[in-house]
Order: sequence, then C-alpha cells, then structure tokens
Amino acid sequence: MVGVALIGCGHWGPNVVRNLDALPGVEARVLCDLDPRRLEALRPRYPAARTTTEYRDALGDPRIDAVAICTPVTSHFEIAEAALLAGKHVLVEKPLTDSGRDAERLVLLAERTGRVLHVDHTLVYHPAVQRIRSIIDSGELGELLYVDCVRINLGLFQSDVSVLWDLAPHDLSVVCFLLDRSPRWVSAVGAAHLGRVESQVYLTLKYDDSLLAHLHVNWLAPLKIRSTLIGGSKRMVVYDDLAPSERIRVYDKGVVLEGEGEVGDRNRVDYRIGDVVAPHLDESEPLARVCEGFARAIETGEPALNDGRAGLEVVRILEAAQASLDRAGERIRLRPA
Amino acid sequence: MVGVALIGCGHWGPNVVRNLDALPGVEARVLCDLDPRRLEALRPRYPAARTTTEYRDALGDPRIDAVAICTPVTSHFEIAEAALLAGKHVLVEKPLTDSGRDAERLVLLAERTGRVLHVDHTLVYHPAVQRIRSIIDSGELGELLYVDCVRINLGLFQSDVSVLWDLAPHDLSVVCFLLDRSPRWVSAVGAAHLGRVESQVYLTLKYDDSLLAHLHVNWLAPLKIRSTLIGGSKRMVVYDDLAPSERIRVYDKGVVLEGEGEVGDRNRVDYRIGDVVAPHLDESEPLARVCEGFARAIETGEPALNDGRAGLEVVRILEAAQASLDRAGERIRLRPA
Amino acid sequence: MVGVALIGCGHWGPNVVRNLDALPGVEARVLCDLDPRRLEALRPRYPAARTTTEYRDALGDPRIDAVAICTPVTSHFEIAEAALLAGKHVLVEKPLTDSGRDAERLVLLAERTGRVLHVDHTLVYHPAVQRIRSIIDSGELGELLYVDCVRINLGLFQSDVSVLWDLAPHDLSVVCFLLDRSPRWVSAVGAAHLGRVESQVYLTLKYDDSLLAHLHVNWLAPLKIRSTLIGGSKRMVVYDDLAPSERIRVYDKGVVLEGEGEVGDRNRVDYRIGDVVAPHLDESEPLARVCEGFARAIETGEPALNDGRAGLEVVRILEAAQASLDRAGERIRLRPA
Amino acid sequence: MVGVALIGCGHWGPNVVRNLDALPGVEARVLCDLDPRRLEALRPRYPAARTTTEYRDALGDPRIDAVAICTPVTSHFEIAEAALLAGKHVLVEKPLTDSGRDAERLVLLAERTGRVLHVDHTLVYHPAVQRIRSIIDSGELGELLYVDCVRINLGLFQSDVSVLWDLAPHDLSVVCFLLDRSPRWVSAVGAAHLGRVESQVYLTLKYDDSLLAHLHVNWLAPLKIRSTLIGGSKRMVVYDDLAPSERIRVYDKGVVLEGEGEVGDRNRVDYRIGDVVAPHLDESEPLARVCEGFARAIETGEPALNDGRAGLEVVRILEAAQASLDRAGERIRLRPA
Repeated sequence: MVGVALIGCGHWGPNVVRNLDALPGVEARVLCDLDPRRLEALRPRYPAARTTTEYRDALGDPRIDAVAICTPVTSHFEIAEAALLAGKHVLVEKPLTDSGRDAERLVLLAERTGRVLHVDHTLVYHPAVQRIRSIIDSGELGELLYVDCVRINLGLFQSDVSVLWDLAPHDLSVVCFLLDRSPRWVSAVGAAHLGRVESQVYLTLKYDDSLLAHLHVNWLAPLKIRSTLIGGSKRMVVYDDLAPSERIRVYDKGVVLEGEGEVGDRNRVDYRIGDVVAPHLDESEPLARVCEGFARAIETGEPALNDGRAGLEVVRILEAAQASLDRAGERIRLRPA
Repeated sequence: MVGVALIGCGHWGPNVVRNLDALPGVEARVLCDLDPRRLEALRPRYPAARTTTEYRDALGDPRIDAVAICTPVTSHFEIAEAALLAGKHVLVEKPLTDSGRDAERLVLLAERTGRVLHVDHTLVYHPAVQRIRSIIDSGELGELLYVDCVRINLGLFQSDVSVLWDLAPHDLSVVCFLLDRSPRWVSAVGAAHLGRVESQVYLTLKYDDSLLAHLHVNWLAPLKIRSTLIGGSKRMVVYDDLAPSERIRVYDKGVVLEGEGEVGDRNRVDYRIGDVVAPHLDESEPLARVCEGFARAIETGEPALNDGRAGLEVVRILEAAQASLDRAGERIRLRPA
Repeated sequence: MVGVALIGCGHWGPNVVRNLDALPGVEARVLCDLDPRRLEALRPRYPAARTTTEYRDALGDPRIDAVAICTPVTSHFEIAEAALLAGKHVLVEKPLTDSGRDAERLVLLAERTGRVLHVDHTLVYHPAVQRIRSIIDSGELGELLYVDCVRINLGLFQSDVSVLWDLAPHDLSVVCFLLDRSPRWVSAVGAAHLGRVESQVYLTLKYDDSLLAHLHVNWLAPLKIRSTLIGGSKRMVVYDDLAPSERIRVYDKGVVLEGEGEVGDRNRVDYRIGDVVAPHLDESEPLARVCEGFARAIETGEPALNDGRAGLEVVRILEAAQASLDRAGERIRLRPA
Repeated sequence: MVGVALIGCGHWGPNVVRNLDALPGVEARVLCDLDPRRLEALRPRYPAARTTTEYRDALGDPRIDAVAICTPVTSHFEIAEAALLAGKHVLVEKPLTDSGRDAERLVLLAERTGRVLHVDHTLVYHPAVQRIRSIIDSGELGELLYVDCVRINLGLFQSDVSVLWDLAPHDLSVVCFLLDRSPRWVSAVGAAHLGRVESQVYLTLKYDDSLLAHLHVNWLAPLKIRSTLIGGSKRMVVYDDLAPSERIRVYDKGVVLEGEGEVGDRNRVDYRIGDVVAPHLDESEPLARVCEGFARAIETGEPALNDGRAGLEVVRILEAAQASLDRAGERIRLRPA
C-alpha cells in the first residue's frame, strides 16, 4: 500500500487526492495545508487521514511513501526538494517550478535518490490529446507545419503568477508532447493590463525547418476559447476543448503545388478538400490517468509521460519566454536539453 | 461628370468599376488590362467605355479624370505615380504600394498636384467597423487594452506577395482606423510552408502604455476565421465577420481590482459580468461607400477616411513587419509618421 | 427543525436530499430505497440519518415532517397519498403522477389535510426561465404568438415510461409557467422506434386566439438540443440551455403589416430589425430554489410556483397527449381546470 | 437548338432563364412578364430575346420549344395547361399547382401530348441531398426511423400563399425524394399570426411501420434555421444548410436493445457511439442541374427526378395538409398515388 500525503488543499489538491486515493493500492494518509479550514472541509472524505498545517510533518511520517504538491508555484521547489531528500516520491502540480535551474536540480535529485518525480500536466492525458498524438504518429498529417493554441477567458484563476506561468503550461505541455522535440528559440510579447504581472501574452516557439508553435493566453477576454489548430502538409486537426461533442476534427485538406515556380503563380496551386472526421473519444478523466501513471511509475519504475524531464522542458520554455517578455520580445535561444 | 478608367480588370477591379459607375456623376470610360479576354468579358456591361491593353493610353485620355488601379501590388507605384503626374485622381487597391518610401512619394505627389489619392481599405467602411469605432469614440469600452485579429483560411487568393502583404492590410487598416494612433514598434514571425514567401505570419504592434495589437494571418488553416477581439477596461467587443447575424457583440464584462496590492491577491479581484448586446448593423456595401468617399473627395476636396496617408501608414507597418520577419522577429521601431 | 425523509435514492433523489439538507432548519433524517446498496452509498454524507428499505417505515416516523419522493413515476401516487394521509408534507419528482385523476386526488387530499404538496419542476426555477417570465410580464414581447420547444438527444435516461412522460414534463412545466393559461386542446403524434413505448413525440398545444405551443421530444437524435423559441408580436426570445454563455437572447425583431389587405400584398409587409440582447443570468442552482420554495411553503403556508395544481396541470396535458397518441393524433379537448 | 420562353420575370425567373440559356443547345428567345419594368431590367442580358407582357404571345411563337413558368402559384395551372396544349415542354416553379386535381390533369396532359413536364424542386439536386440519398441507398443508416425538417426565419418571401405552400414544398420534395414512398396520412396544425393565411405550420407525415416525417415552417422566427435530421437504426444524418462548411454530418450513433423485455429495463439498453464524418460535397449549383435535367429530358425523353409525378406528389401532400389545417389537425388519409 502506497501512503500518500497531499500538501496544499486549495483549488486543485482535492481533485488530486481524490484520484490518488481511488487507486487500488494507494491510500491518502496525510492532508496538509496552512489553512485549517481547508483541512476541516476535506477531512470527512478521508476519515483515515490525519491533518497537519506543517508540510515537514508530512515528510517525516514513515507511513507516507509519496507526496502530491499542490501549493503555489513559488513553493514547489522547496517542498519537492525536501520530499525527495526525505525519500518520498513526488507529484507536483504544473508548472514543476518557477525556474529552470530549480527544475533541473529536482530532476537530478530524483535520479540520484531513485525516487519518482512527476508533474501534473493533466492535458497530456486528455483523450483528445492522446488521439492527436496517435494521429501524428501514424503520419497521416504529413509534415507538421504549425501548432496554434488559444487559451483565453475572463478570469485570474491562479493568481500568484502571470498569465504566462498560469495558463501557458497547459498548452506547452501539449505542444511538447505532440511535437516531441525542443524549440530552437522562443519569443514572447505581452502586456500587464492590471497590476504588474502580464495578463495577456503571445508566445512563439520556433523549431527547425519551418515548424512554428504559437500561443495566445489571456485573462481579459470576453469569450472563453480553448482551441488548438495543428497544420500538416496533408491533413489538419482542430481541437476545440469546449465543444459539447466532436472535440477533435481531422480535415483532409491541403494545398498542392504543381510543377516549378513560385507560390505567386496561381496556376501552380491546387487545393485538396476531402472529408472531415471527428473521431469518437473515450470519456476517461485525464487526472485519473495522471495519477495512475504516477502510481505505476512508483510500482514498476517505468518512466511515464509526465516525468520530471517533461516538467523541466516546460519550465525551460516558460523561463525563456519570461526573459523574452522582459526584453520586449527579444528572441531567446534555448540551449539543447 | 467624372470620367473613370479602370486599370486592372482581374478579381477585384470589376467590383470597383461597378460601384464607381453606379455613382451619380461618375462614368466608366476606359477599361484597361493586359489580358484582352478580361476586357472582352467586362465590356458588355459598360457599352460606353473603350478598352485598351496599355495603361498609359488611359492616362493620356482627356475624358478621364480619375483612375482606379487594381493591378498586382508591385505595379501600384509606377501606375499611380504616372496617373498623378498626368493630373488624374487615383484610387488604389490595398495595399497602396509595396514600400513605404514609394507610398510616401505618392502622398507627397498627390499633395503637390492637388489630386485625390485614395486606397481601397474596404473594411474601414464596413458597417461593423464603423460601429465599433463609434463605440470606442463613445468611451464605453473604457481604456483600450488590446486588439486581436485572426484572418485564416485555406487559400492563396492573392498570390504575387506573401500572406503578410495579402491578408494583413485588411486588419491593419481596421486597427489603424480604430486605434487612431501609430504603433511604437512592430515585430513579426512567420513561416514559408510552401515556396519562398510566408504563408503564415504572427504580427505584433506595440503602442504606448500597455496597448497591444496582434494579427494571425494564415493561408494554410483548415477553418475559415475572420475575428477581431477588442479588449477594453470596461467593455469588450467581439467582431466575427462570418457570423450569419450578430456580427458584433458588446460584452459588459471586466475585471475590477479592489484596494491595494498585487493581482496575485485574489481578494482584490472582482468580476463584473453584465448583458451582451449585438447591435443591429445596416447592410450597406462597404465598397460602395469607399467609392462614394473617393468621388466626394474629388468633388469637394474634403479628406476621407481612406486617403493616401491612411494607405501610407498601413504600408509603413507592413514594411516594418517584413523587416522583422527577415530578422526572425526582431523588434522594429517605427519612426513617427 | 423540519425532518425530511428521502424515498427513492436513485438518479435524482441524492440531489434533492442534498439541497434540502443544506437548507437552514431542514435535516435529512431517513433515507429509503428498495436497493440497500444505494442506501449504503448515500449514508456517509448523512451520518445522522437512518436508512430503511420500507417507505411506510419512513412515513410512520414521528421525527419526519416532510418526504421527498424520487421513485419511478408509477409509484408516485401510492406513496404520496400515504404520506399525506400520514400528515407529511410532500415533494414529488416530476411528473406528479401518471394519471390526471390521481393527481387531482392528491391535490384535493393536500388541501383537505392542510399539508404542502409540491412537484419538482426544476426548470421553472431556472434563472433563464424566470427571466423570460419577467420579460413576458413586462409586455416587451407584445402579444405571444408561439412557444416552440425541442428536447432531443441520444439516450433513454428515465426508462419506465415513454419519452412523452420522461422528457415532455420539463417543457410543459415551462410552457405552463410562461403562458399562465390552459390549452384548449392537445394533439400528439409519435413513434415507438424501439420496444413498445414512444421514443419520439411531437406534441401540439392550442390556446385561445392563435397562440400555439409545440414540443419535439426524442430519445434517438444524433444531436443534443435543448432549445425554446418564444415568438411575440414585438420581440422574440431564444433560450438555448446548452449554450456556454448567453443562454437567453432577446431579438428586437418583428413583422409589421401596414394598411389594409392580405399578407400576400408585399407592399404591406415591413420588417423591424433591431439589436439582440443577451441578459446576464445569475448562476443559482434551480433545484436549490425548488427546495427553498418547498421549505418556505411548509413554514409559512404561502403557495409556491411548483404547487400541486401546477403538477396537476402538467399531468392533465400529458394524459391528453397520451390519449391523442393512442388515437393517432386526434385532437383532445381539455376540460377547464 | 431549344428555344425557351420565360414566363414570370420576378424573383426566381431570372435565375432559371440564366441557367437555361447557359446550357449548350438552349437559347432564351422570349421574356414575358406583366410588368414592363422587369422586362426592361432583364433584356440587356439576353439581346437576342424579345419581350412581351402577354404569355399567350410566347406560347404562339413557333421558335419556342419550351417554357419556364415562374409566376405566382395560382396561375401555374392555367399557363402550364395552355403551354402543353400549344405543344411546349414545361418547367414550373414549385409547387407545381395549388390543387392536386390540377396537378394530376397536367401530368396526364403531358403524357398524352408527349411533352416534358418538370417542376423546379431545386433542393432535390442539391449536392447535400443527393449525397444523403446515396447514403440511404447504401443501407448504412439501417432502417429509417424519422426525418425532421425545420425551415424557419423572419420573412414572407413568397406572399400570395401561406407558409405551408411557400416553404413546405422545399422540404416535402426532399422528404419524397429521400424516402421514395408515399405517406399513409398527413396532419397539420398552424396559426395565422398575421392576416388570414398561416404564418407557422407543423406538418406530420406518417408512413408504414413507425417511419415519421415532420416539418416546422415559420415566417415569424427570430433565427434562420434550415436543418434536416434523419434518424436511422444504425446511423443518423444532420444536414444544416446554413453551415459554412460540413453541411452534412453522418453520426455513427445508435441505441441497441439487448435481450428480451421492454425499453424500460435499463439493463437492456446499450449505446453505440462512433466517429462523426462530414463528407466533402461538390459545389455545383442545384438550379443548373435542374435545368440540365429538363433539357436532357426534352432531348432524350428519359424521365428525370423532378418530373410531373414528383410535382404531383408534393401537391397532394400539401393539399392534404391544408385540409388538415382547415380541420384543426384532423388526420387526412392519402389515397395511393
């Protein structure tokens, strides 16, 4: 039986512990939060768990094998490092840390201590994202041309960081998972329409060849949009996460250039327009699968999608984007991972 | 009676001459195109007009007072300059020219010769855009925060230039008209997925304060999208040009920060969510109003929305964007107009 | 303190008891279901409640003042009658009963015993429906012309009755609440595409003047639609319950007939097309307000929207519709209530 | 060369003559309308055609082989009969006539005189409708369960008749073409919200087995909707004629009943939910294909989709629906065709 402690019982933590506790062989044993009212609210569901306001207390508990860290991002590194040093397996809410250097230290520490370090990039386990990945792997999209992500709405849901560090990790984890390679450089522009942190950011990732990824994240939009376009030379995918059904549509559409010459020569351009297919997606809860992956990695040691290196990659891109933001959009080269 | 010559009878020219000829006091008298088949196709509608394959022929005709230039963009400067020198009033299809220097020379030449120089920024006369401008002028949006434009589809409709010079002029003319000020700097990233010219471009315009405008133009998208979001501190506007009705919606939505402190303090954030209003728009054809504005300017000398300076401003931004594209997204400062 | 028993702990019952128990001055004291597993699943949330598989056991409990009946519709009458005879207040899941005669007996019995009899027409308390009612009351729609309801999807959610008795009560309760009058006659056609009961029904209600209401309910539709159109002579309302936002839109649209003569004379027809307004709706949970209304009626004796007579009216229409279905669409006159 | 006369140059007639005249071997030779201004407006496009205000003049012209009748429906019979008697082939705008008896007389007269009698049921040639028919023919929908048509908007486009005779012919021609059988009975309810003729009608067609077709036609709706749902036991089709793309979607969805027993037994119900496919449709203009079919029938004598019998079937249903409307929804049996 894997004993689990939840550290941070705010917005997301209760979902994580519910999914962990529901797994066979996993049991919630400690609930930890600075705010005793949150502990009180959560306790009735986990009668066997004890509560504490001191996370070091949880780390010192020999009945605890693993901790889920769902605290504000600025505290991730400190708690995760202490947990790994205490010999615990660690699952951290996204993003892994607020600096690439810290993320790297955690990854190395986990490798050294032989503990599992995972990050909760929930969307990676979304049935739509999994399906898009398998469509890409099948080659049916042809050469990948671009990924365009829009994640905008009215609302500052996570508020100790800017919209970049709050919303972009979702799309970056998806982009990294789908493209399976590192960008060459990153640039970002944004604006702090309220207070000092950015509430709107446009982020560009440039890969080798002509592949491009672009994100628009915005807390001050009148509409809620969660869309991802994936352009391929043969087919294209639209993923609308708010569609009531048919969240993914695969378009058999493309442009074919005939013969020699420049695009400007209209005679050379031919369009291919075929059917649109919306594959049926299963309804599994992505967070449940994140937790399964974490539990399986603890049990078997086999690496999972959301391992520390995946978390590190997202943090490296965020950090580069922040540097670009701070220099008004300057291009920031990423050193090879 | 104002005698008009149409130079360039391809895709857009026939629409322009139809709208000009329909105006009281305006008559189409010369049709000019390199391709005699186009002339033949158009002639029956304008029995009084003569046709020619040589634009200088049209410019030399004393019965011609004004010319509409609907040729490929690379030829705009040469023809417009010759027309102004020949004492003709000039209406040019967007963009005005393919270089800022040339655009400036045309503007100065028109001022010197006292001829009207207009550019066909059709969207500026769209009832939706006119309405948004009057909403902005009324102050009901509060402080302007951003304009976000998406103009994507599958198709290379105008093909002698990149997607930047083909599609972005539409949105840039709208952004310039709505914001009524010049950006401080411009940056652009893009990719040439087909041939040598860019088929996808992301373009950022940075203004004083935190105002931001951003465009996504793309010839290789599976969906056709024509949307503009305008964020204000009090209200926001969504303009969806493809909506079958309710093309503009005004959202009485916003975020209010209470008291002191940083955005991160959730207690400080309050949302205001009120009604959504879709104002009724009249159905007038924008191009007809462009042509009216041109004819009125000829008659009265009064300046119109789409004058040469408006055309120059769009070209200056395009040119800066192109420079940024060529240097992988480098920020390009615009000197004051 | 009002002690409550829940009878029937299947799909909907747990929601009802959760909302009742959350009210100040109301406490869940007995949970009753034929299936002990359901009792076991629900018990942990209501540690103070005892469980039983015998509803007469609940009715005999002197600590119980009110019962919520969430059993299959065929059992509603028997249980509700016994509860009223035992001196309990009664809240019944929709529809009130499966026969008009039984519904009438319950209404009379409640009046005789001075107990509260309510039916859970949840939608009547939906913020959208409440708002539409106040729009109608304000007179801004002009004369009411029609109500058109579509409630279709793939799925047999409630399966002991036909789609008429399963889905139509939702819309009928809304139609009765909005129109606040009784239809003169009812007709219905349908088809039993699966098994013996109807899985698709079209239902027409004819009122005095030219007012018409029409429902389409269908368990075998590829799309999920929940829409209500309300046509008025001055304005019209569209209520789309599945819209992510702007569930109600009020259209300032209409046809005006000028002068004398028949509609056929085109010169007489004029259209009025103005703005569209989507009023902001509050987010209150309708079922919570149903339960509040029930508790307040118990406390104060004041009548509420969902009283027994409202339940009876819906059952009378359903019964007439069933009679019409059984006679291939014959018009069934409703005697005055 | 087939010489054609257009009788009725109002809204639709100019489209018909344009498509006829564009066919090889067909020439517009006479234009006829009571209103000389319409003739004047149309004449420039057909310089070789003469104009007249007297239709008998057109029928007496030996250079005329065929007439297209686009006059108000009440005049269809008189003109079509005279045309057939004069030995002309006849294409009539929908509906064929305003009475079944007259429609039948035309069909018989055409057979007797050996002339072609066609009705312009344009939608039957729509690529979407043709595709749905081939999907049905392939058997992939399984057993047909229902067809549900909604055709509503604000506007009295055709105004000499009620909404039944104006809008329903479109859907009835599609329903007849798709189902390829006659309904057993028809019923209709409606309301005359303006003037004396119905402006809103619900129409039900009952076929053998449990097959049902239903139409909602309405001139007083705030939204424009053109949708057709086709339910099959294996798959279902949604045809949204106003969708900017993907007008047809085929849903691999259904309900499977396992084992014995009634629908009410939830354990028996199983859902099958697979992919959704939107087949690509070609862009051909339906009216051009209607005209082609007419010209081919003249040339070869081979029967076409929109022959007189197809027109008669639609009129018979309309007439039965009108009888039902006049008797408040009474079921009207159709005698076998």
